[in-house]
Amino acid sequence: MKTMILGGDGFCGWPTSLHLSQQGHDVLIVDNLSRRKIDIELEVDSLTPIAPMSTRLAAWNEISGKTIEFIDLDVAVEYDRLERLIEEYKPDCVVHFAEQRAAPYSMKSPKHKRYTMDNNLGATHNLLCAIVESGLDIHVVHLGTMGVYGYKNHGAMIPEGYLDVEIPLPDGKRIETSILHPADPGSVYHTTKTMDQLVFYFYNKNDAVRITDLHQGVVWGTNTEETRLDERLINRFDYDGDYGTVLNRFLMQATINYPLTIHGTGGQTRAFIHIQDTVKCIELAVNNPPEKGQPVQIFNQLTETHRVRDLAKLVADMTGVEMQNLDNPRKEAAENELVVDNKCLLDLGLNPTKLAEGLLDEVMEISKKYAHRCDKSKILARSQWIKK
Amino acid sequence: MKTMILGGDGFCGWPTSLHLSQQGHDVLIVDNLSRRKIDIELEVDSLTPIAPMSTRLAAWNEISGKTIEFIDLDVAVEYDRLERLIEEYKPDCVVHFAEQRAAPYSMKSPKHKRYTMDNNLGATHNLLCAIVESGLDIHVVHLGTMGVYGYKNHGAMIPEGYLDVEIPLPDGKRIETSILHPADPGSVYHTTKTMDQLVFYFYNKNDAVRITDLHQGVVWGTNTEETRLDERLINRFDYDGDYGTVLNRFLMQATINYPLTIHGTGGQTRAFIHIQDTVKCIELAVNNPPEKGQPVQIFNQLTETHRVRDLAKLVADMTGVEMQNLDNPRKEAAENELVVDNKCLLDLGLNPTKLAEGLLDEVMEISKKYAHRCDKSKILARSQWIKK
Repeated sequence: MKTMILGGDGFCGWPTSLHLSQQGHDVLIVDNLSRRKIDIELEVDSLTPIAPMSTRLAAWNEISGKTIEFIDLDVAVEYDRLERLIEEYKPDCVVHFAEQRAAPYSMKSPKHKRYTMDNNLGATHNLLCAIVESGLDIHVVHLGTMGVYGYKNHGAMIPEGYLDVEIPLPDGKRIETSILHPADPGSVYHTTKTMDQLVFYFYNKNDAVRITDLHQGVVWGTNTEETRLDERLINRFDYDGDYGTVLNRFLMQATINYPLTIHGTGGQTRAFIHIQDTVKCIELAVNNPPEKGQPVQIFNQLTETHRVRDLAKLVADMTGVEMQNLDNPRKEAAENELVVDNKCLLDLGLNPTKLAEGLLDEVMEISKKYAHRCDKSKILARSQWIKK
Repeated sequence: MKTMILGGDGFCGWPTSLHLSQQGHDVLIVDNLSRRKIDIELEVDSLTPIAPMSTRLAAWNEISGKTIEFIDLDVAVEYDRLERLIEEYKPDCVVHFAEQRAAPYSMKSPKHKRYTMDNNLGATHNLLCAIVESGLDIHVVHLGTMGVYGYKNHGAMIPEGYLDVEIPLPDGKRIETSILHPADPGSVYHTTKTMDQLVFYFYNKNDAVRITDLHQGVVWGTNTEETRLDERLINRFDYDGDYGTVLNRFLMQATINYPLTIHGTGGQTRAFIHIQDTVKCIELAVNNPPEKGQPVQIFNQLTETHRVRDLAKLVADMTGVEMQNLDNPRKEAAENELVVDNKCLLDLGLNPTKLAEGLLDEVMEISKKYAHRCDKSKILARSQWIKK
């Protein structure tokens, strides 16, 4: 199976590329190395020392005997090269990670808002456009976010993409219908993911493109079975205020005895998934395309939900580190419940890796090993949702 | 009142600019003349001989004594100039027409799909971003389309933007809520307008930007009270297969005894509005902003609905011209019903200009006057929704 991975150099993209290669896929990574270049802009670096792409690929070949190809291409900008590449490579599946994925980064300034909008929509639309133009029957697997649903409770369980509703009529009757779950984005980044859904809807309806959209929770952990095989394969670990995800940040902060940074009351409930499960879910999605002519297939890609302050307490209890409550830079509900259906991926065979001390310890070991690489001045989140 | 009109050189933008100027607004047109440049690309021209912008503005000054300013600026591209302009001009209201508005044009090729996506989203997002950055309390009035709702009947009347639904729970209870009406776009153009709604939703929620979104029907007619005052003020009249709107096309075809071009069965029901009512509706919207902190205000901007074949028959009966049924280049339902709520604008004082023989005659008179400018080879619609 030929699989093209857009954004295959990133935090989720790299371990996915290795995992699919290990599973026997013919993998082609397409990436413009934007994530590494953003590190340069932000004057921060992955806590783990990630190797350059050519070193990564040579190491993988040496260790696994398998070859992953790489093309440096900006999917959002270089449409003609993308179209030609799709026509020549003829992938069975394209996994689409090629989007700016940090909400705080997307809110830093007009430049960052506009970059996130242009890059994310440009990438998604160019991909769909090129697939239609190629005339090939290619399955698109896209990394979306649980954030498209928003965190205002309507009180019902969040379904996998489609919500059954009834429309009351003046005569007292009701029309039963199923709709794309209403969108409630909380940042420019999240807005782009809700907009992606409409692009997918249209290209699926008009051109019958097969699409699976994965609404992923907050990813934690860093290594997977494949990235663990050699230090040159190590995955990114972001701890900074823009790109670091909450649980990894707490674990890294605990390692260096930095009081855990809780935004607001910590009453936010979020969905979580370990990076090992991310790669497994993508394998399941790639292997289970919707039938031709079926609507966009949507899976919720998470294994558990937790309240942020409960995670902080867990880490504090494990390590003895202090907690600190900081002003929340985001505009969001102080407290929310979150009940989410994730039956589809479980039914396809996902065996969840739940939060357990053993796995938390592993993340802390990595944090400890590379603690000397941490720039403490980068830990606090400085991006503000509202212009002061 | 200071009003900036983005896209003020276009079919709706120009008569709106004149109308608001006539009503005493201080009007600044911002336009990159893209619509005239697309005429060059398509090798077609407005049936009516539209004057260059400087001639238009000089004529308006001569006739009304009023001054409209004009700045040539690409809203989707020149962000920094746009931001500076907003900060310096300090508009009370920005009317946003600066989008590629033809569904067939948006489906012609990857280049046209991508231009429509980049231009429309770029313009909308740049505008919102610049308003937030300016810190000014500016009301945005946006021209949307009835097409965001789609033409699949769920069987209920189409409300003004927000649909009351009930979410059934497993225990038999129901949650009552109001949601943005589900989107069902029928072209890349329509997709951009559904995506605009999400941009508006986010910037309204996060930054409390005041926004009115007008979901407009198919516009017909060409002149308004102001454009009629002098030939140099004449409005565009598009009859070609990409930009011509259905009723104007039928009237123009009848004038030159060209069999009326009905796509498919003509069973499509669409919403209509006369250009004179368009400018009145925009005046009403501009004068009635939502309160600060209120959700996006959505009005359905139409005065009547008609089935396409009924319009063809009306014109055929009036004129004796033949009708022809052509393959429908669009992918859409062959037949649909359409019942739409338009109470908001009526309550604000809109007095609808309904389809009447007198007004149809006026359009035909203009068609007849400029029939010598018609290139018959441009009448047929050639843009195909599905790649052959």
